[in-house]
Amino acid sequence: MCLFLTNFVQYSAMQTQYILEVLGTGFFAISGALAANDKAQPDWFGASFIGFITAIGGGSLRDILLGSYPLVWVNDIFFVYAIIVGVVLASVFFKTLIKLRRTFFLFDTVGIAMFTIVGTEKAMSLGVNPFISALMGMFSAVMGGVIRDVLTNEIPIIFKKEVYATACLVGAVVYLTLDYVGCERNVNFLIAALLIIGIRIVAVKKNLSLPKFIKEKDEI
Amino acid sequence: MCLFLTNFVQYSAMQTQYILEVLGTGFFAISGALAANDKAQPDWFGASFIGFITAIGGGSLRDILLGSYPLVWVNDIFFVYAIIVGVVLASVFFKTLIKLRRTFFLFDTVGIAMFTIVGTEKAMSLGVNPFISALMGMFSAVMGGVIRDVLTNEIPIIFKKEVYATACLVGAVVYLTLDYVGCERNVNFLIAALLIIGIRIVAVKKNLSLPKFIKEKDEI
Amino acid sequence: MCLFLTNFVQYSAMQTQYILEVLGTGFFAISGALAANDKAQPDWFGASFIGFITAIGGGSLRDILLGSYPLVWVNDIFFVYAIIVGVVLASVFFKTLIKLRRTFFLFDTVGIAMFTIVGTEKAMSLGVNPFISALMGMFSAVMGGVIRDVLTNEIPIIFKKEVYATACLVGAVVYLTLDYVGCERNVNFLIAALLIIGIRIVAVKKNLSLPKFIKEKDEI
Repeated sequence: MCLFLTNFVQYSAMQTQYILEVLGTGFFAISGALAANDKAQPDWFGASFIGFITAIGGGSLRDILLGSYPLVWVNDIFFVYAIIVGVVLASVFFKTLIKLRRTFFLFDTVGIAMFTIVGTEKAMSLGVNPFISALMGMFSAVMGGVIRDVLTNEIPIIFKKEVYATACLVGAVVYLTLDYVGCERNVNFLIAALLIIGIRIVAVKKNLSLPKFIKEKDEI
Repeated sequence: MCLFLTNFVQYSAMQTQYILEVLGTGFFAISGALAANDKAQPDWFGASFIGFITAIGGGSLRDILLGSYPLVWVNDIFFVYAIIVGVVLASVFFKTLIKLRRTFFLFDTVGIAMFTIVGTEKAMSLGVNPFISALMGMFSAVMGGVIRDVLTNEIPIIFKKEVYATACLVGAVVYLTLDYVGCERNVNFLIAALLIIGIRIVAVKKNLSLPKFIKEKDEI
Repeated sequence: MCLFLTNFVQYSAMQTQYILEVLGTGFFAISGALAANDKAQPDWFGASFIGFITAIGGGSLRDILLGSYPLVWVNDIFFVYAIIVGVVLASVFFKTLIKLRRTFFLFDTVGIAMFTIVGTEKAMSLGVNPFISALMGMFSAVMGGVIRDVLTNEIPIIFKKEVYATACLVGAVVYLTLDYVGCERNVNFLIAALLIIGIRIVAVKKNLSLPKFIKEKDEI
């Protein structure tokens, strides 16, 4: 009975995680399509294409760097469906989505937290060094956005404005530390995810940013 | 005797396809080198490099996403020779090629049609979902140009102006539908290729384009 | 005894090469972080990120194109350590490094020469055609910088100003020719590396550059 319960919790956790991953991919597609529209004013195809690449870019890059085939979305059409739904929603409910920026930001942040930890776990499961696994986790979360910015001819926003990738890296390191200490995986997952979400929300609310790389630029 | 004939036709079709693929790669190199020159005014090396990447970019990305190794051009030096010839021709006959834009456009379109269908077939042969295979076919055809535009610091043209990638996607879907229905492969190939070529020619002649992603931009 | 000596020399050569590769990676990270700072004025994270990608970009792309897994830096944490040290040094000793540009240029050039030949050897060892192996060697050396320039929204410098990638290609071809003739590997390595270094130093000193792809631009 107890075993059954444990299995059920495990199973539900797996199910929940899978659903969140698919949803996260859809949200990334929405944010990609909206961001693309701000900048490049693409046609329908262009916006969909950029949404698509934003959604799959980070995870694909991680898997390519790890040599882990098949890529998640190549193997599971549901991720592609989520992207299509995301792009269509972005077009149809454009005005509403803009007004819902705050709600939207929350979903985006949840997506990033998920992707970071799932990416870190995947690299660990392939026997990669923990520190490099944390980097892979961060890549999963942020590289989609970097590719989106490169495609729309912008300097990637993560290089400048947001305490964003750093939050992912911190979350990944905390996850690995808790895991090393022997913490239960689902608890661990939750703590690290909430940490990433928390850091990002605080950073945006307080308008925090990392120090510039070189401060005394004018003195040189 | 009949078997011999069938084999001969099959063999000729394979040969023709291979030759068209190599030629298509060469044409992509020419268009890459010419486009690079318009924008970045590179030196000899730069133009060759951009021509090279335009030619191999789409197919390489497809194979990397599919985890299908070795990459075609890494395994077959003839593709590299075609690229070198293309780049040299682009430099020597620059003025003539500019005047021949119309002929050139036709070859480029044929190349794109070829790449789309070959790419779709390759993904299918690796057991990939048909819809994702169609995406892979489109990637084969258009991503070389996207990478070229990113390298020369332009917003990729396929996001904005041309009914181009869409034509590839339509062609790939038609190809897969005919294949599913049980149509003979070479006939099928020809129909889908002609469709892609036709859509693109009509679109350019009539100056058609897809609707903008968001129409009422100013109202927001 | 003689065998022992030969082994020792071989071993030392391997050791030296490994150390030079790790150091080269660190220098690439420094140059990436400094270049990033010139252009995009990133925060700490951004500069580190760009330094990281500059350092691993070329080798990673080579291995991905070759399908050679695991990637060097994913498998060997020392490369990542070298990058971290490089980025920290770039930030702390920024002004000094700017003054040491000449020394720095030398290290950078040594790094490029190393990467070219190591990359060429790796491709050859995987049974790739010699000419394509030379291309892979050049990619190893220059693609990190290309990705850096794309990320900071610049047209890659190798397309325009420096006899740089060409030097790599020449060095790789000389290496392969000497190898084919039957020259001893370490001697061979040294000659090709010195050639790359020599060409680049002469080119920069004399301000040489390759001819433009199309000269009579205005006449068109």
